[in-house]
Amino acid sequence: MVRILGKEIFKTTTGTPFLIPTTGTGAWESALTNTLSPGDRIVSFLIGQFSLLWIDQQKRLGFNVDVVESEWGQGANLEILAEKIAADRAHTIKAVCIVHNETATGVTNNLAAVRRILDEYRHPALYLVDGVSSICALDFRMDEWGVDVALTGSQKALSLPTGMGIVCASPKALEASKSAQSVRFFFDWNDYLKFYKLGTFWPYTPSVQLLHGMRAALDVIFEEGLDHVIERHSRLGKATRLAVEAWGLKNCTQREEWFSDTVTAVVVPPYIDSTEIVKRAWKRYNLSLGLGLNKVAGKVFRIGHLGHLNDLQLLGCLAGVEMVLKDVGYPVKMGSGVAAASSYLQNTIPLIPLRI
Amino acid sequence: MVRILGKEIFKTTTGTPFLIPTTGTGAWESALTNTLSPGDRIVSFLIGQFSLLWIDQQKRLGFNVDVVESEWGQGANLEILAEKIAADRAHTIKAVCIVHNETATGVTNNLAAVRRILDEYRHPALYLVDGVSSICALDFRMDEWGVDVALTGSQKALSLPTGMGIVCASPKALEASKSAQSVRFFFDWNDYLKFYKLGTFWPYTPSVQLLHGMRAALDVIFEEGLDHVIERHSRLGKATRLAVEAWGLKNCTQREEWFSDTVTAVVVPPYIDSTEIVKRAWKRYNLSLGLGLNKVAGKVFRIGHLGHLNDLQLLGCLAGVEMVLKDVGYPVKMGSGVAAASSYLQNTIPLIPLRI
Amino acid sequence: MVRILGKEIFKTTTGTPFLIPTTGTGAWESALTNTLSPGDRIVSFLIGQFSLLWIDQQKRLGFNVDVVESEWGQGANLEILAEKIAADRAHTIKAVCIVHNETATGVTNNLAAVRRILDEYRHPALYLVDGVSSICALDFRMDEWGVDVALTGSQKALSLPTGMGIVCASPKALEASKSAQSVRFFFDWNDYLKFYKLGTFWPYTPSVQLLHGMRAALDVIFEEGLDHVIERHSRLGKATRLAVEAWGLKNCTQREEWFSDTVTAVVVPPYIDSTEIVKRAWKRYNLSLGLGLNKVAGKVFRIGHLGHLNDLQLLGCLAGVEMVLKDVGYPVKMGSGVAAASSYLQNTIPLIPLRI
Amino acid sequence: MVRILGKEIFKTTTGTPFLIPTTGTGAWESALTNTLSPGDRIVSFLIGQFSLLWIDQQKRLGFNVDVVESEWGQGANLEILAEKIAADRAHTIKAVCIVHNETATGVTNNLAAVRRILDEYRHPALYLVDGVSSICALDFRMDEWGVDVALTGSQKALSLPTGMGIVCASPKALEASKSAQSVRFFFDWNDYLKFYKLGTFWPYTPSVQLLHGMRAALDVIFEEGLDHVIERHSRLGKATRLAVEAWGLKNCTQREEWFSDTVTAVVVPPYIDSTEIVKRAWKRYNLSLGLGLNKVAGKVFRIGHLGHLNDLQLLGCLAGVEMVLKDVGYPVKMGSGVAAASSYLQNTIPLIPLRI
Repeated sequence: MVRILGKEIFKTTTGTPFLIPTTGTGAWESALTNTLSPGDRIVSFLIGQFSLLWIDQQKRLGFNVDVVESEWGQGANLEILAEKIAADRAHTIKAVCIVHNETATGVTNNLAAVRRILDEYRHPALYLVDGVSSICALDFRMDEWGVDVALTGSQKALSLPTGMGIVCASPKALEASKSAQSVRFFFDWNDYLKFYKLGTFWPYTPSVQLLHGMRAALDVIFEEGLDHVIERHSRLGKATRLAVEAWGLKNCTQREEWFSDTVTAVVVPPYIDSTEIVKRAWKRYNLSLGLGLNKVAGKVFRIGHLGHLNDLQLLGCLAGVEMVLKDVGYPVKMGSGVAAASSYLQNTIPLIPLRI
Repeated sequence: MVRILGKEIFKTTTGTPFLIPTTGTGAWESALTNTLSPGDRIVSFLIGQFSLLWIDQQKRLGFNVDVVESEWGQGANLEILAEKIAADRAHTIKAVCIVHNETATGVTNNLAAVRRILDEYRHPALYLVDGVSSICALDFRMDEWGVDVALTGSQKALSLPTGMGIVCASPKALEASKSAQSVRFFFDWNDYLKFYKLGTFWPYTPSVQLLHGMRAALDVIFEEGLDHVIERHSRLGKATRLAVEAWGLKNCTQREEWFSDTVTAVVVPPYIDSTEIVKRAWKRYNLSLGLGLNKVAGKVFRIGHLGHLNDLQLLGCLAGVEMVLKDVGYPVKMGSGVAAASSYLQNTIPLIPLRI
Repeated sequence: MVRILGKEIFKTTTGTPFLIPTTGTGAWESALTNTLSPGDRIVSFLIGQFSLLWIDQQKRLGFNVDVVESEWGQGANLEILAEKIAADRAHTIKAVCIVHNETATGVTNNLAAVRRILDEYRHPALYLVDGVSSICALDFRMDEWGVDVALTGSQKALSLPTGMGIVCASPKALEASKSAQSVRFFFDWNDYLKFYKLGTFWPYTPSVQLLHGMRAALDVIFEEGLDHVIERHSRLGKATRLAVEAWGLKNCTQREEWFSDTVTAVVVPPYIDSTEIVKRAWKRYNLSLGLGLNKVAGKVFRIGHLGHLNDLQLLGCLAGVEMVLKDVGYPVKMGSGVAAASSYLQNTIPLIPLRI
Repeated sequence: MVRILGKEIFKTTTGTPFLIPTTGTGAWESALTNTLSPGDRIVSFLIGQFSLLWIDQQKRLGFNVDVVESEWGQGANLEILAEKIAADRAHTIKAVCIVHNETATGVTNNLAAVRRILDEYRHPALYLVDGVSSICALDFRMDEWGVDVALTGSQKALSLPTGMGIVCASPKALEASKSAQSVRFFFDWNDYLKFYKLGTFWPYTPSVQLLHGMRAALDVIFEEGLDHVIERHSRLGKATRLAVEAWGLKNCTQREEWFSDTVTAVVVPPYIDSTEIVKRAWKRYNLSLGLGLNKVAGKVFRIGHLGHLNDLQLLGCLAGVEMVLKDVGYPVKMGSGVAAASSYLQNTIPLIPLRI
């Protein structure tokens, strides 16, 4: 257990991972306080509940947050980013913060495009990415996209229990941590780095059981192959969207370019309360759907499709959604979503390598 | 762990359970050797692979087996039983052996009817029942139906690992064990009974971990309620049969009265090899279907639906079967089986009590 | 899982527990940042490595720390505390911070005496206690001793994996949290309190597996009885000290009043390097002893005796220590420590209630 | 899981292992019924409770058992064996049955000597060995000693849960199974062999969880090294005997040549009831000792020292025994047994390879 786990999942060779006994919220805090100082201007995109929470944290931690808001269901507005970056000749913007995949609305942002904008204007802002519901499930390339801090949590695509925040810092981010003035102790990378040098790795007692879990999770992921894992999520996402379409319902995500392969937020007709759908799914069918949060409360329900999940499990879930839709009075054609999904999947599921 | 577990699942108050570290095959042997003597005449029904194996055991253990064979897909021929019992004024028939649910063909026999025949002729034959794929899933009433030995295994409806054969003996069976001349030691009830009296319960080291498992399994079953568990299986069985019908395929079970609620054997068209279906399901969809065995090899595949299984898991399985059927060239309408099943289930699934 | 776990272990009826997905270090941070503002004067006792680390945190989080240092092996100097409190008529001291049990030196501080001092001078300072290696093992009385924030971690006397910081706040501490100006987000009690009101309990994903573990750990503790658990630790501590004495070695703890019942730091003769003892114990005997830390590095090794540990396990450990001592050239009389411990234990171990 | 596990632990290259979902008692039955016919003469040694139980089985299964009895505490009387073998020119003796290690008295028989006797007279009797409490703990060499059937159980030196009988048959035993007339079905090797040829390995559902356990147990054993495992048991056995001697108590085993390295039966003075020792150990110290059985009931208690057990665990156990001895009024010098054991162990425990 002596080497630090996790670098591979970020597709980085130069990054330094920190495995912190915390959650995604703590990982956010680690990313911000280690690289920035109070009052620093940061650009941050508000596109749904989880980006909103991160922005709330950014504000409460004392940063000067320049919020770029989009309608919920849309991706980050990169045109506005480009304008701000272009205008910022004085480099007052210290960081750009973006959620790769907004779990509340099922929107995946275009991380490569953010990098292109920063590069176009040779802007030195740090590039901080919340990859909680993307890393190990969606295409993520830390080095190629010049991400400075990427982070995820143990309980998402790694399919472990909650309790480990996994943060990866670029050399530039580590450099920034030397002068960052934000008050921090539990989340301070410098303490970790000190112990890395000593070869003992943790400045305080780590979550040993989650480190063993991490080792096992990485074995499972790399046995399938990280790229195959990503393809599987792509397949499950597409299948889910085909089902939604077959049901005659709308995806909360407004454009195909933003479609998320890890979660689909489904808009219900105005005469239905999506909360009722989530409740019934849980109480009658033992099916755990996601609530609509905040602005989309009552309006959407969410189907999660990330982690150690296979095609038949998804189809069982879709069949369950159909029953709930019927229960709440939506005129769904039973089997229609499953058929749309399975017709697509039947042609695309690869053989399981160990069983060929 | 001091009281003997398991009586409740047989619906008996007078039976004596034996929890033997063995499998269903050993439980069969226990039932026969403790109650019968070599050369004893027994009537036994051959209706599929598992009844055939039991008959093989009966013969090799030295009994005089009067085999009543049915076409595979049919239930036990009780008319012939009635004739034999009627004719046996001398009571040369020492036992009637029947498999409650033939797992190979998905046929459930009518146990109450067997008892009626024996009663009608006041015939004293012992009544031995293999309940491996029925007890805790199908309606089973040891006392009411006058069953003398009932048996099951830990790995079926109890959803435990394999390794415990659970045998329940009526007072009449215990009485028979006193004079039964079959050679036995490991399976000898008398050793168990001796230790029951001592309060130490096992004549040799028991499978302690499976006793803990049994306690947990019974808690799960009785929390749901044994009768609700049976209703759930009834629902899952019906849903599966509706799917098979929607696919335009035939149930191997020839008459509704014999339909099994724990396993469905599906007949494939002659131009398809059912073995191919089972292989593909495993290799591509991670779906474990049952092969056609012996006389129905290549002709049927089997869908198991017993144990700790819920409606959405079954629907996921049915969706998987549809994909495999398509793979092997059967002109299935995608979603058709799932729709047939879910249309039925949507009206019939009860709320989960703990979540109301 | 709906009610908040853990109040009972603090012996409080008015406290509010927070179960935070973090470690003891994070629990410290939670206690400080929720109750204090940057620049606040706090009195803190430096008596060993863990109190030193907490003081380091206190300083780095921006508090004005009035350090009361004792020689390592002594308890908190309460005379100096009394002087400071007496002198502080202006109530510039906002909090007194103390480690109940200093794990590095095996010193248990007198918490009741601290409260008496504060009461004597009617001083309103908050009373913050690190109970990481004491709560659920040593006598701890939050309400009786007027502790304002008490904290522990899942991996100590609760015998769970690392990953949950358990913090309990008095009404006065909660009141303080309303005006505390320290920057905080992940550790902010107010977010927890908001969700407590909503009945959903966590402002972010909790460590669900540790909540299940906590439930099980509390069941184990309350089945034995919290006071019996404390008595057991008292017995194990005494037995260990008797062994140390029999070996002719000195306890790092300088006075009986400070003896710790959860860890014993043993001073080795100058010609022995205690690090060698710890290494050999691990490499040859599969025995995990604690290193001497910082000022006592090389000079002491530590025997932990807290949590789900029984008398024979401790005696096995003591026998192992004897072998290591012999290995490194200390002239120990083999069996002497074990005999001293077991002679005492033999008279004092109670019957196991469930086995009487 | 496709290849058959276990051959290595018997030190055989030509043997065929059978992993049967049963216990040691079933493994005995498998060994006898597959190689012998009713009425066959066998020589069997009665030296304690477990050999007595096997002989009881041999008789009840219909064999003509020529019992060679020794006083309990002595090993098998090989002089009488030699006489019988010498006298049996007609080869009426079909098998010699011996318990390698008699668990009731802590006696290890000399298996090589039995082979020498058979060889000296070129006697073709099968050589059947119960290795339940020896294989994977004591030196056992199936091929070298010409053992025809060797057997053990999962719950002994393999440290797994109960439920798997592991039987290994020599080519000669397999040959014998072709003509053996004993009635058998569940335990019939021929059914296993048929499925071995098919590559599916089990004639009925196996204990899948124990097969996974077996794989893990073998990994643990071969990581330590089978010969190192045997040396460890030798060390633990010697240490235990030194403790017994230091207590002034007698080993039930009468001669050093028979000393068992997996269990030590300790004789108590006449004024003490050993049952009381076992009860108190369990009720007060959570220590599980073995009762004296049958002829030695009340006279001996047993200390087991086999399986996944290390030196400190044994020393903790010995310390516990000392406390119980004191409890029941035996004038034990506290620490004396532990000191005797640890003085020996301290010089002999090797470094743990992975930690060097």
